[in-house]
Parts: sequence; structure tokens; C-alpha cells
Amino acid sequence: MAKDKSHRGPGLLDRRSLLRGGLFTAGVAGAGLARADESIGVNAPQWMKTPGRSFSTYGVPSKWEEKVERSFTVAPGRAGTGASRTPLHLLEGTITPSGLHFERHHNGVPDIDPSKHELMIHGLVKRPLAFSVEALKRYPMESHIHFLECSGNGGAYNQPQPPQQTVGGTNGLLSCSEWTGVRLRTLLDEAQPASDARWVVAEGADASAMTRSVPIEKCLQDAMIALYQNGEAIRPEQGYPMRLLLPGFEGNMSVKWLRRLKLVEEPVNARDETSHYTELMPDGKARQYMFLQAVKSIILKPSFGMNMQGPGLYEVSGLAWSGAGRVAKVEVSSDGGHSWRIAPLVEPVLPKALTRFRVPWEWDGRPAVLMSRATDETGDVQPTRAQWMSQFAPGQFYHFNGIACWSVASDGTVKNVYV
Amino acid sequence: MAKDKSHRGPGLLDRRSLLRGGLFTAGVAGAGLARADESIGVNAPQWMKTPGRSFSTYGVPSKWEEKVERSFTVAPGRAGTGASRTPLHLLEGTITPSGLHFERHHNGVPDIDPSKHELMIHGLVKRPLAFSVEALKRYPMESHIHFLECSGNGGAYNQPQPPQQTVGGTNGLLSCSEWTGVRLRTLLDEAQPASDARWVVAEGADASAMTRSVPIEKCLQDAMIALYQNGEAIRPEQGYPMRLLLPGFEGNMSVKWLRRLKLVEEPVNARDETSHYTELMPDGKARQYMFLQAVKSIILKPSFGMNMQGPGLYEVSGLAWSGAGRVAKVEVSSDGGHSWRIAPLVEPVLPKALTRFRVPWEWDGRPAVLMSRATDETGDVQPTRAQWMSQFAPGQFYHFNGIACWSVASDGTVKNVYV
Repeated sequence: MAKDKSHRGPGLLDRRSLLRGGLFTAGVAGAGLARADESIGVNAPQWMKTPGRSFSTYGVPSKWEEKVERSFTVAPGRAGTGASRTPLHLLEGTITPSGLHFERHHNGVPDIDPSKHELMIHGLVKRPLAFSVEALKRYPMESHIHFLECSGNGGAYNQPQPPQQTVGGTNGLLSCSEWTGVRLRTLLDEAQPASDARWVVAEGADASAMTRSVPIEKCLQDAMIALYQNGEAIRPEQGYPMRLLLPGFEGNMSVKWLRRLKLVEEPVNARDETSHYTELMPDGKARQYMFLQAVKSIILKPSFGMNMQGPGLYEVSGLAWSGAGRVAKVEVSSDGGHSWRIAPLVEPVLPKALTRFRVPWEWDGRPAVLMSRATDETGDVQPTRAQWMSQFAPGQFYHFNGIACWSVASDGTVKNVYV
Repeated sequence: MAKDKSHRGPGLLDRRSLLRGGLFTAGVAGAGLARADESIGVNAPQWMKTPGRSFSTYGVPSKWEEKVERSFTVAPGRAGTGASRTPLHLLEGTITPSGLHFERHHNGVPDIDPSKHELMIHGLVKRPLAFSVEALKRYPMESHIHFLECSGNGGAYNQPQPPQQTVGGTNGLLSCSEWTGVRLRTLLDEAQPASDARWVVAEGADASAMTRSVPIEKCLQDAMIALYQNGEAIRPEQGYPMRLLLPGFEGNMSVKWLRRLKLVEEPVNARDETSHYTELMPDGKARQYMFLQAVKSIILKPSFGMNMQGPGLYEVSGLAWSGAGRVAKVEVSSDGGHSWRIAPLVEPVLPKALTRFRVPWEWDGRPAVLMSRATDETGDVQPTRAQWMSQFAPGQFYHFNGIACWSVASDGTVKNVYV
């Protein structure tokens, strides 16, 4: 089955050829099989012989999964400044468990009493307004599954040597949730923006007063005041009791612990719009207000830190996403980009949401280089790392969306390589 | 806007008429507005004045949300036998946070070491097989958002008086997750069922050895061995390290802590197929092996335990679902079923998944009775409670899917009523 090498990627299979006879790792004839029917006898596992534990009001993961956790790095002496990362390589599907959603804090997680929190809308509006949490909960709600990605995600790929880290380490500033809240347009309509209002300055109620300027067009398009995340109240690390949500824009603009939106004529050049989150160009100038998280993908299985278990059938799977809309196509190569095969996408494919792709691969045991390349519905294609690097000055690392490459050695070791 | 009473339900609005001028609870001109720009001054909230807390490896909900929890009832002297319920009335969207997924245990939650757990497939197969967790993880995966519902959910509606409980109390044996795992058909194909294999007996590795008989057609259709729930390893209460998932069938058949599947000719009449989970008919006989969770819906906002805040615009919202496929239509009435309006469904509408509906309602302050009625893509329509009751003997309470009705009194009190 690994013979069709032209234009398809060695060993990458379509589902039809898989169904014609491929077997994944077969189960084995285990020692327990002969005694399978003695399930309540002396040979039963110990956990069938004593009653299990009782009910709980709020469940947590199994103790056997304690290694599935966020890793974090903080600024020296500033425990609340830094980021934690989602262990993407240990997860499946597309929804990120809320407990593992990545964090990016500029001065820690505030402990906000929701009964004392208000969202203010002021500045260039006819009717300045303040909304309590309870008042907002009476408004019509919307629910959308959207990813959030830090603009620094994947920044380590600007280093001369490929980062030998797990995908969580390199790309874990990326998560996806079902968000529910009030469409910002509904609230702006009530506040009645003045005709010269062009930008909206969002400020968080954290100790950094995180501040970003947002074009009013985005606020009127698909921005949301998110109150719920994966069904329950938004988590403290994600902005409890409310955050701005700007689907497809760099994560820090979806200002957490949102306390006010001020309508203004021009962007305010806030600290995090000048010292951070800009793009350093070859001529030494920095581009500001580049908001979009462009089309991107990464293979998670296999990836760095995993080892192949010998030649045979595997499923190659990963995530693709675009801040511009739906993922239209993901291609996978097993020969370093010489040939590509289209990888089926897992339905539903939703706009500005993580999309899982899966493709069977018959690994023949020889060295291989796996890559994925996503295209979104606007026609934007994920560039190679070299193409991406050529646009910027060497120090630039925001908005990396280049193709990631995994080398698979004959001994099954998986490493990050630049091709 | 509340004048169009014929065939629409008093005050129920479509989005178009809403956009023509409806305002929900307006925000108010709060005291803070005049000093909004002094956000880092003396008037700033206390949580902006000190650094927030640091990062965490696995996050939990805000301490201010501790009342959003599962409630549970257990059998006397048997701490692990009973059920806990999802507080549906306090949640939003459609995904249930894994920590709040309902539980139904027959002898507690076993603490299974995943490295010692195997799934066996045996009985009428050519190749009996055993699969470790690691072996299963090499197979092609699928992800699907599906609800799970206990067949006893809503059983309290068989009482002569309407249960005055929250929706979590009456209907909280219902949750919805993104499940990822291996299609059962893939494993059965490897085991090669004999031609006389008609049923599959699933057994859990808990101390009740929970056992159910499943038609082989279902196992070959859309059954899954679920390993992941909402992105991470399946929770202990949901079957860690693996459960059977039978989309649309009554919850207990999706056997948790799954340890073996035995292919047989006839169902085995296990304890929970005779003493429980049957339907008592008017002639005194009990129907066995009625698996489907039929089309159903319930309004969550408003619902018992909430009070209206005076006349004005509200959003009526709730959940609809069907074990037979997609929800095709939800109608809402505000006059006890005399007139109905179609409620828009929140996309994506997925098969055998919870579907959120939302419709604006201008409450004029007079007594009203709110009801929702779902129809699924097979054309099946949710019956009234009276229609449902007429099929069975009085003691029967499994598979209740009748229409629930909320009365709204002039003082804003919301109660459960039978219409």
C-alpha cells in the first residue's frame, strides 16, 4: 500500500484504500481472554471487588493523568507576568478543557467580585452606559466555538535551530472553546456611537490595566462580551466575570476582566501596542495594529517527544485554523514537501475554530519528513518557514504561521527540522 | 410589539421585529461612568491595585461560582449507588463542562490503573482480541459532539403534581461533550464476528460489573470506544480510561470503564435489563430493550427558581435534542400551547447533540405559560405530558419526553405546571 509515491506522499493513504485491507495495531490475544467470563470471580481486577468512590459536586481528571497539565514561564520576580501553555500534543478533538486553556497575564489573575464589576461603554457615544453582570445576562446570547491564539505562539521558530520541544511547548499558546455571551454590537447600538467614533479602546480590570485599541468595524462585526466558556461561567484565567472576544484576532486583544470600552477617533498607542505585539520589518520599522492570526496548521501525532513503534499503519493527525474564516484544505506530506495528499477534515468545520485533520499513513520504517499545509476559505495558504522569515527582520517573532516539519528517523525518533 | 397574538404566541418576536426597535434591559448611567478614565487612580477597583495571582497547571472555576455544582442523591447506606445531576439552568451554550457532567453509578467510581486495563472482544468472533489503552490510541480516531441522557431523566413528571424543582433537578441527567475515540466497527472488523453474532454484551470494570446487551447493528453503525472527553482523557466518573458510547441510546448502555464486549446470539437479560430500565405498559407487562432517547426539549430561561424582573424584553432559551438525529424545529408558546412561534436554532445543529434555541419575548406582565415543542429530522414530534402518560402504566417513568410548561405569574414567579 506504500507504493503510490507520485504526487501523494509515500504511504499516505485515502480512506478507501485503507478500508481495502489496512490493519492498524491489531489487538493481541491477551492472557485475560481465556478467563474473560470470570469477571466477578477471583481473577477479576481489584477495582471490581470493592465499591468505588461516591459522587462529587465538581469533577476533576483522573490522578493517572496528572502529567497532562499547563507548563508556564514567568518573568523574574513577577509571578503574574508570563504565559502558560496548553499541552496540545496530549489532547484530542478540538475543544480545549477549560482547566488547560493557555494563559497570558500581564500582572496576574485578579480576584473580581462579580457583584461589584461593571462594564462601561463611554467616550464618543450619545448614551454612556454601565452594565452589571446581571444586566448583561438578560440580553440575547450567542454561542460560538472559536480558537484563541497568542500572537507570540510559535515564535520559537524564528531561532536558527529548530526548537526541540513538544507541540505544547512551541504552539501551546492556542486553545479553543465554546464561548457564549452578548454580541457587542447589541450594546453599542444602545450606546449610540457618534459618527466620528472609529476605534474602541478596551481596558481590563487587572493590575496591568491591559489596554488595546480595536477598530470599530470589528466591534460591529463579530465581537462578543463573553460570559461563559464551555458552558459554565468564564474561568478566572480567561477573564471572569467577562472578557472581550475578537474572533480571529491575536489573543491579547480579547481583553480579559473587561471593565470599559471607550469609543475614540484614533488608536491610543497603549503600552502593549508599542512595546509588544508589533512586527519588526527588514527596514527597522515596526508595523503596528496587525491583528489577524493567519492560516496555520501543525501535526500533533506524531510530533516531538513521541516515538514510532516500528513500521506499520499510523494515523497522522493535527490541528488547522485561520483567523480569517474556515479552513478549506489541509495537505500532508511525508517526504518533506515533494508530494502532498489532502487530509480529510473532521466535521463540523467552523469559522475561526480549531479543525482536526486525520490521514492514515503506512510508515515503511525509512526516514521521513512529515509536514502539513493549511489553506483557508479566503485562499490564503500557510507559507514555509523560509517564506515567512523573508518578510521580517530577524528579531521578529509575532504572528509566526510557517509550516512545521517533523523528521521521523529509522529508529522511530521524531524531531523538529527546518526543511 | 405584543399585539400579534394569532398563531405566534403573545409577545414572541422574530429577530426582524426585534431589530426594528426592541431594547433589552438597558445599561444604566452608573456612578462609575463619570470617573471611567481614572482607571489607575484612587477610584480604581481594589483588584487593579495589587498584582493578581500567578499561573496554575490546571485551572478551576471562580470561587464566586461555587453554587454551580452537581447535586446528588444516593441509595441509603450505598454511597456509590445513585446519580448526580448537571445544573442545566445555570449553564449556557451546549457543551457541558466535564466537571459538571451528570453521573449515574451502580456501585461507585472505580480507580482503574490504565496500564493494567484491557478491552477484550470475545465470544462469537473468529479472532478474540485484547486491547491495551496504548494499543487503542494508535487506531484512527473520530470526534463527535453527542449528548448523553439517563433514561430516568424527567421521570418526576410522572408524579400527579408538577415537580417544583430547578431544571437541573428535573432534567439534569443530561449532558453533552465532544467525545473522541475509536469507532467500534474498526475493532469488530479485526475480531471478525461470526455470522450468528447478533448482540454484543458490554461489561464495565466497576464493582457492579454493569452489563448491557446491545444490538450488533448499533455497534456497527456509530458506536465508539471513547477515550477522550472535551479534549482530555475521559473523566473517572465517565468511564476512565474508556467507555462505550452509543449515541442517542439511553445513557447506561454507554457502559463506563468498559472491559469486555462479548458477541452472542441473544441478549442476556442482565440485572439492569430486567430490574431497571424497562417500560411498564398498561397491561402490566414491561417492554425491554427500548433504547432510544426520543426527541425532547426544555426551556431553561426562564424556568423554576428564576423570577422575572418586571415587564419588558427577555430572551427565552432552552435546549432540544433527539437520539434519532438532528433537531429539525423547536416551537415556543407563551400561551400554554394555543399558539406557537418557531424559535431559531443556534448553529451548528449536530445529530444526537444538544441544540440551543433562543427567541426574544416581550413579557407584558400578565400571567403566561411558556412551552417548547421539538421535532426531529425523522419527523418525530415531542408529545404533551398527557399523550406520553397515556401510553404507559402509572408507575412507568423511563424515557419521559413530554412537553414541560412554565407558568409565569404577574409577580414574576416561575413555576412548573401541567397544562
